Amino acid sequence: MQDVVIAGVGMTPVAEHWDKSLRTLAVEAIDAARNDAGATQIDAVYVGNAFGAAFSSQTHLGPLIADHAGLSGVEAYTVEAADASGGAALRAGYMAIASGLLESVLVVGVEKSADRVGAERVEARSMALDADFEAVHGATLTALAAMLMRRYMYEYDVDLNAFEGFSINAHANGKRNPFAMYRNTVRAGAFAKAPMVAEPVNLFDGAPDGDGAAAVLLTSVPMAETLGISPVFVRSSAAATDTLALHDRSDLLYLKAVAVSTEDALRQARIDRSEVDLFELHDSFTIMSVLALESAGFIGIGQGWTFANDEHIGLRSPLPISTFGGLKSRGNPVGAAGVYQAVEATLQLRGEAGENQVPNARTALIQSIGGLGSTAISHILSV
Amino acid sequence: MQDVVIAGVGMTPVAEHWDKSLRTLAVEAIDAARNDAGATQIDAVYVGNAFGAAFSSQTHLGPLIADHAGLSGVEAYTVEAADASGGAALRAGYMAIASGLLESVLVVGVEKSADRVGAERVEARSMALDADFEAVHGATLTALAAMLMRRYMYEYDVDLNAFEGFSINAHANGKRNPFAMYRNTVRAGAFAKAPMVAEPVNLFDGAPDGDGAAAVLLTSVPMAETLGISPVFVRSSAAATDTLALHDRSDLLYLKAVAVSTEDALRQARIDRSEVDLFELHDSFTIMSVLALESAGFIGIGQGWTFANDEHIGLRSPLPISTFGGLKSRGNPVGAAGVYQAVEATLQLRGEAGENQVPNARTALIQSIGGLGSTAISHILSV
Repeated sequence: MQDVVIAGVGMTPVAEHWDKSLRTLAVEAIDAARNDAGATQIDAVYVGNAFGAAFSSQTHLGPLIADHAGLSGVEAYTVEAADASGGAALRAGYMAIASGLLESVLVVGVEKSADRVGAERVEARSMALDADFEAVHGATLTALAAMLMRRYMYEYDVDLNAFEGFSINAHANGKRNPFAMYRNTVRAGAFAKAPMVAEPVNLFDGAPDGDGAAAVLLTSVPMAETLGISPVFVRSSAAATDTLALHDRSDLLYLKAVAVSTEDALRQARIDRSEVDLFELHDSFTIMSVLALESAGFIGIGQGWTFANDEHIGLRSPLPISTFGGLKSRGNPVGAAGVYQAVEATLQLRGEAGENQVPNARTALIQSIGGLGSTAISHILSV
Repeated sequence: MQDVVIAGVGMTPVAEHWDKSLRTLAVEAIDAARNDAGATQIDAVYVGNAFGAAFSSQTHLGPLIADHAGLSGVEAYTVEAADASGGAALRAGYMAIASGLLESVLVVGVEKSADRVGAERVEARSMALDADFEAVHGATLTALAAMLMRRYMYEYDVDLNAFEGFSINAHANGKRNPFAMYRNTVRAGAFAKAPMVAEPVNLFDGAPDGDGAAAVLLTSVPMAETLGISPVFVRSSAAATDTLALHDRSDLLYLKAVAVSTEDALRQARIDRSEVDLFELHDSFTIMSVLALESAGFIGIGQGWTFANDEHIGLRSPLPISTFGGLKSRGNPVGAAGVYQAVEATLQLRGEAGENQVPNARTALIQSIGGLGSTAISHILSV
């Protein structure tokens, strides 16, 4: 097995890109990553995309994107795991290099959700739930997240305002990120005054879907040396699943896939949690940040909400999260989200995060989640 | 890099399975493959599926299928490359084992198209074409295949009836396959009398979509030895792409991706074409069989149609194709088609093909195609 490194990164802003198509966004991110690496040889393009069919009436993105990126002919296909598609594509790329079969793989995550609005968007998004036992009854991702949050509040006797620190932190970081979708400040007391979306999930709680694309160029070490770049190493890669339907879980408030993939990633990288300098988690809802922190073992069960403050998760805290705004402020580009995490963590580890720099960042854990923990894919990056 | 073997195979009949859901079909194939191998340890489930969103309103198949197969928790995600999704999932599984990261991967291809009929089916299928430049104008896969066929007939002065030998061969083999969708005999003269679908593609020319699932268990050699089975080796794996839109190709009648992936697969396996004992190609339309045979280098350009007879492609010929009926007679389970090829080729190489046995089959080339050659993924299997 050969070592895998990130030799180049690129991304587009997350926004409602009315003037750009799915392929245009993907090509923009690919071009940026190739320029960053100065790479000419590309052996394959792996696409992370969750809703091309439902959002853009477009599947078969591999040859489409490879061709439009000027790489027609190379191996290319799509990897899908709902919102964890980006993480899954990254893992596929990791395996391709690790196996020694390929020397350089472009992993691009791309999503264009703005073309479907309102009920159409919700219907499309619900395809990633259990169609026969959840979506058919009208359950939506937000409604199910609300049930998790309500259960958590009941079990641990926690108030709604205990969660808002995650949104405050995300926006505090996102407001300095020119690629972020919502750069407004969220202030203490926001949750109490916010309109409800699916009680208790409110307007300032859930991450907004956005259009965007991010790309990382994975290479072998010799290839990175040829390119003359200082690589970021992909130290480990781990994937796990849980039931798709929430009602099939014995414990709603424990994300088994998060626990397994985190443990596996740490074990492979031979590090413990104290060595993680930043954790890009999947903050699709504040309850997901809470459950991810607990299930990943960074805090005890029932205590994740106590991390919702600058002291625990801010840029200068022991465990910075959402350092460029996370899904909440940077925006959730769905199937691209996991690749955005890789790009942002790479910038941190290179010391190129500007105003959002985590001091002395040497090791990052990134974790891409599909649904409400049905898929969890973790990677550890380090310099 | 470690060697990769097929330790177990399973499949469902290809049919209109009105009484079975997508997950049920997948689990049936997985159970069959696991029983075949006698395997208990499964590290991952890779799903080949092309149209889960459009046909079944269901994406995120990894955790869904893993859970329902009794494997909840294992790594699982979907690989998509239109009709080549099965081949792409097989390649992802190959890389996972080859890298040494995993020891046993279930690759399951599954598709359920029967729930969408008529215009809905066509609209769904057209998502795998170029949505912005082909599908938007009303182009369909069949209509574009018809244009290729017409061009071929014009360029090489070939009559419609020159193609029917491919359908005759497929049905001659498929009628002895209990898993085949259409087991009727196609007789000489059929094309001349057939109703047209998109002239010159007629009722007996194009492969019918069907529901079905197929699974192969890929393992390392040590794992196969532990299981005590006689493995079939995956000698090589190669993927290539061409433009998604037909109008972007400089030569419509040369499938570049087929040429590249075939050449690469042969080179990796260190064999030449004469050593291929059977070729499971993607006979979605007779013109695709012609172009695949030519582009893969088994016959000269413009001469592929001369292979349309028992002497060249029958079970006892030098290059048997569609040995269990191919997509034409066995049916086209779309995203599962590439995995069906792997299952069928494995049965051939094990000498378990019954009445469809190719004598002394030692080496098989299987080739999964997406669209009209936009993706081509080739594997060479041998004993």
